Amino acid sequence: MLTPEQLTRLDQGMNPRGVAIIGATTEQHRVGYSVLESLLLGGYEGEIIPIHPRHETILGRRVYTSLAAAGLPVDLAVVALNERATIDAMSDLGRQDVKVAVCVAGGYREMGQSGTSLQVALREAAERNNVLLIGPNTLGVMNGRIGLNATFWPERLPGGGVVSVISQSGGVGQMIICQAQDQGLGINKWIGAGNRAALDFDSLVQYLGADPTTSVIAVFIEGTELARPFVELAAQVDSQKPVIVMKAGSSPRSQEAALTHTGSLAGSYKVYQDVFGQFGLLQAPNVNALVSACKALALAPVPRGSRVGILTPSAGPSILLVDALAELGVEIGRFSPQMLERISGLFKNVPVVLKNPLDAAAVGYSADGYLTLADAILGDPAIDLLVAINLDHKNRRFPAQELVNLSRQHGKPIVSLFIGHGARPFAYRETCQAGGIPFFGTVEDAAWGVQGLVHRAIRGLAPNVSRSADPRP
Amino acid sequence: MLTPEQLTRLDQGMNPRGVAIIGATTEQHRVGYSVLESLLLGGYEGEIIPIHPRHETILGRRVYTSLAAAGLPVDLAVVALNERATIDAMSDLGRQDVKVAVCVAGGYREMGQSGTSLQVALREAAERNNVLLIGPNTLGVMNGRIGLNATFWPERLPGGGVVSVISQSGGVGQMIICQAQDQGLGINKWIGAGNRAALDFDSLVQYLGADPTTSVIAVFIEGTELARPFVELAAQVDSQKPVIVMKAGSSPRSQEAALTHTGSLAGSYKVYQDVFGQFGLLQAPNVNALVSACKALALAPVPRGSRVGILTPSAGPSILLVDALAELGVEIGRFSPQMLERISGLFKNVPVVLKNPLDAAAVGYSADGYLTLADAILGDPAIDLLVAINLDHKNRRFPAQELVNLSRQHGKPIVSLFIGHGARPFAYRETCQAGGIPFFGTVEDAAWGVQGLVHRAIRGLAPNVSRSADPRP
Repeated sequence: MLTPEQLTRLDQGMNPRGVAIIGATTEQHRVGYSVLESLLLGGYEGEIIPIHPRHETILGRRVYTSLAAAGLPVDLAVVALNERATIDAMSDLGRQDVKVAVCVAGGYREMGQSGTSLQVALREAAERNNVLLIGPNTLGVMNGRIGLNATFWPERLPGGGVVSVISQSGGVGQMIICQAQDQGLGINKWIGAGNRAALDFDSLVQYLGADPTTSVIAVFIEGTELARPFVELAAQVDSQKPVIVMKAGSSPRSQEAALTHTGSLAGSYKVYQDVFGQFGLLQAPNVNALVSACKALALAPVPRGSRVGILTPSAGPSILLVDALAELGVEIGRFSPQMLERISGLFKNVPVVLKNPLDAAAVGYSADGYLTLADAILGDPAIDLLVAINLDHKNRRFPAQELVNLSRQHGKPIVSLFIGHGARPFAYRETCQAGGIPFFGTVEDAAWGVQGLVHRAIRGLAPNVSRSADPRP
Repeated sequence: MLTPEQLTRLDQGMNPRGVAIIGATTEQHRVGYSVLESLLLGGYEGEIIPIHPRHETILGRRVYTSLAAAGLPVDLAVVALNERATIDAMSDLGRQDVKVAVCVAGGYREMGQSGTSLQVALREAAERNNVLLIGPNTLGVMNGRIGLNATFWPERLPGGGVVSVISQSGGVGQMIICQAQDQGLGINKWIGAGNRAALDFDSLVQYLGADPTTSVIAVFIEGTELARPFVELAAQVDSQKPVIVMKAGSSPRSQEAALTHTGSLAGSYKVYQDVFGQFGLLQAPNVNALVSACKALALAPVPRGSRVGILTPSAGPSILLVDALAELGVEIGRFSPQMLERISGLFKNVPVVLKNPLDAAAVGYSADGYLTLADAILGDPAIDLLVAINLDHKNRRFPAQELVNLSRQHGKPIVSLFIGHGARPFAYRETCQAGGIPFFGTVEDAAWGVQGLVHRAIRGLAPNVSRSADPRP
């Protein structure tokens, strides 16, 4: 748990006036070089202050011998030194009122007894100097809203949006970002928790819970001693905005691996599952599911109920979707007799059967026919959410904008499952996602998008956070 | 079961000297137009013969009033007429010795009693005229090796390769193609089975089993009355080349939907699962898994055993991979003491623990360090297959070609799990896949790639088909 003052300081660190790289270097293969490059590539517009005792410039940037010599306001420092020098650096950060230190070095608790002592020393040094510590053994942090990439992964990231991420593992955090990019989803804040010497999941979820620009939180967790405070805080936050968790360690061999990773027993997977379930948190089984659920919640309104209607021009994909939804326990609705009567006229002489999924066959090939049916399903009081399946076809227009309009008109979410490849789907996705329709390319991703929305509907949780922020990268 | 003569005729239809479109039309929204456009876009170099009683040209192509009027050799006809006219067309096809008729119309058995009678009439008309019937109610067929796209889905497809597909559903078949494109996998032959009035799964798998250019077969099945002959033939083929099945209908609601799709009860999912299992067929739960397993089998050598070694520069993704492999029942090997001794010198002063997965941490950041470790794992007699995990990084070269060389040198397969987005991964993928390393972007896809290979290793099945055909699109 963070105090109000700590919350403010953490937020200052995540929205810094200036960022220092302690241990910036000209050696391209080293972390201190990649951190500087990441900051430059990300598009961050505040002061970037490389610190090194001897270098004069790196990547064209002036280098300072110390924070004091720079004399610029620094709210965030990325410490790219070895495990001992990292500890020593804390006092200097404290003197300059640096709010947050991101410590990338490994060699702490994940190394057993001696590393654990070092980690305690690091935490104490940070506390003594009133510096909030992220890590150690972390990739870093990002704030996509301001182009801040304070990691050693030099990429321009899919910024913006309302989804923020906490990841114990840098590598898995990168997978989440890559999947978000693949799905056209922006990332707001990204925090690599690493060894969590000071800031653990509880504090980080508390921070993102209080962050007005975050409205969906994804958490990847290997294991923590502070599972209980985390779950309690996450559940509290989840009543306001969705917190979706993904837990590693479902097998004995992976638990063994986790122990030597960030120094935590992965913990009994089953116990975590049960506790997350008791507290109502949605659990994603993999990165694609996590990103898909977050995307749906970031873009679409939460439905009033859980009854899914499906419209498709091709039966096969809808059958797979029904299977996937059934596996997640999602309810496939039954159309009301009134709605079936309303549309039956459309199907004179067309080989279809009027049921859910509604296989529109040739009627669904025309935009007009498809939209008439979508309108009818959305207007059916027995249906809360529409999954609109389409297959890309050169000679058929996909009525993306009209679907956006229908969703708004009925006040019901549409989830798009679109089978295609290449340029056209990208353009359709942009229209859909800008208009509040999450757009998916696989049955499983679409099912998890639906699951994200339905999970909240079942629990009666409507979002209280504005969705006006632009969620695109 | 097909007779040797029928097999020959089917192969002539799939490699036609000329293709006729019965019912070609200038109306862009109609199937007869899209079929012609597909044939033109695909790059097929044989004769394309649009048939229509009145049109003179369509899409710049000369139209003939009848097959007889064209007077050109036609081995394949796509019949884009309504359900009754399709039946009538058979006699004309027979007269011109057309080998295969692809009938796209719906309105047959999937429509109940009256449609069933029509379907019987269609089958009898085809038999009477010695025409092999694909469908009806099918998207069509493709032969990627010759650029033949005889469907109403006008796309240039990912041709070539050794993986062929049988799909009961056109839409799911399109999903398989899109996923293959996303994964950089070419498709050899693609057959939409549809209602299977004449050629059912048994005949189609028999044909692909006998096709020397096909070495991996993917089958998507909703349901068939001829499940037993199919499974028996598939098992026979599978002893020579992998047959991987994906079955829809795991939920009661989807079985209901399948009945009105291609007119087959999806059948008890559990019964299918058990029978497939008894006959040793690998079953994929979804399209991504199906394509991933096929890709691995198309590209990599089958390992001698099932013990997987994992090398990673980042623990998190390897933990997720271990979970995913454990869920599939794949064995994570234990490194031999000799191998651990061999590499322990590399890790002086580096925070790593020597076990499987081998988290190389900073050693793994350099191409040299990574390759030394990959070489050691591949050289370990206790390991049969290496999963090489990498994360894209601007300042670190991914040694794709060297990994290809190592795999060949040791005669052991490598599966690549590469976390990244954008242009660099594409280039790496090309090098890897051209060199026999299947390249995956998600943990689940990589796990299914491994599963495809290990499944055959466990059953002692080495491929007897040359892998020299270029599997890239």
